[in-house]
Amino acid sequence: MKAFIMGVLLFSNFESLDVFGPVEMFGSLPERFKIIFIAEKKGLVKSAQNVLVKADFAFKNTPRLDILLIPGGIGTRKEVRNKNLLKWINATSNKTKLILSVCTGSALLAKAHILDYHHATSNKLAFDWVKLQGPNVQWIRKARWVEDGKIITSSGVAAGMDMSLYVIKKLYGEKISNEVIKNTEYIWNNNPNNDVFA
Amino acid sequence: MKAFIMGVLLFSNFESLDVFGPVEMFGSLPERFKIIFIAEKKGLVKSAQNVLVKADFAFKNTPRLDILLIPGGIGTRKEVRNKNLLKWINATSNKTKLILSVCTGSALLAKAHILDYHHATSNKLAFDWVKLQGPNVQWIRKARWVEDGKIITSSGVAAGMDMSLYVIKKLYGEKISNEVIKNTEYIWNNNPNNDVFA
Repeated sequence: MKAFIMGVLLFSNFESLDVFGPVEMFGSLPERFKIIFIAEKKGLVKSAQNVLVKADFAFKNTPRLDILLIPGGIGTRKEVRNKNLLKWINATSNKTKLILSVCTGSALLAKAHILDYHHATSNKLAFDWVKLQGPNVQWIRKARWVEDGKIITSSGVAAGMDMSLYVIKKLYGEKISNEVIKNTEYIWNNNPNNDVFA
Repeated sequence: MKAFIMGVLLFSNFESLDVFGPVEMFGSLPERFKIIFIAEKKGLVKSAQNVLVKADFAFKNTPRLDILLIPGGIGTRKEVRNKNLLKWINATSNKTKLILSVCTGSALLAKAHILDYHHATSNKLAFDWVKLQGPNVQWIRKARWVEDGKIITSSGVAAGMDMSLYVIKKLYGEKISNEVIKNTEYIWNNNPNNDVFA
């Protein structure tokens, strides 16, 4: 079983399920898959649904990551203007094997110039705003998730779980992804083009 | 819009999505729906997926609740022997309008004698163990969720989101539940009898 470290970005008013949907799926893998939480400063960070979650690491102490996960949420409206955060996303993305985003997390990736000239998707209700954050991005509206090289962006909130199962299957094979599905009783929409919300 | 306070029980090694799936759905409602987190002692509680979440209240300071949500997870194996927790569940359940459980959370409700002579369901992989916790419960294996009076129990992990949308529709009507679905891009399995994991 391959070992991976996934870093999950937290910021004020992140969308809870954008983080905890993927964390549930990846967190159901055996122990060699490690998840850590990173924020500008370490300590408690509050989600848009008022959940207080602890960030283990500050930006300046970020360990080496294999996978980076960027959630969305109403907090992204503020964070697209946070130069320190965008700089961290850019520098960290360049060093990871895989970059994942959920919902309006792709607006942050776009603003950090990680998505320039790549295909990507985002939340449907916020789509027009997200597009403005990345004029050089090839935005695709109808998609549950979009894979372009080492970047996989997913649609709104719950789509992050569909994308996570795709990534688990890609990294570890179908036997393992089926085990995660059985453990979580999640009805996987395994077709990235099947997007009923578009 | 009716005001409700939902208390979510936290204990060591709770399953992340059992808590944050429902919290995402109920947390997307307007502000008059309030969610608070309660544990034996207040402070940080670690999920089975290593997420550190803050409990706002200790058992002894539990405010009046309208709705109680009990998650499951591997931690329930220990908590079914925690007399203080079972006593709190029993006392609190008797005072709330609605009792919800996800996954093996129903084992805790059973052990606290809240489910005696009621219909209920639980996680499929742990079903036989859960049954042992409540010999007087009418367990139903094939169900995404089961409603019996003021108690609604759901199947494993992701089924908690299906149940939450049912409860939101029941409390606030279809217009509001459809808004939550649109916001979260969650593909709702709205039929409690449609259980592909049974």
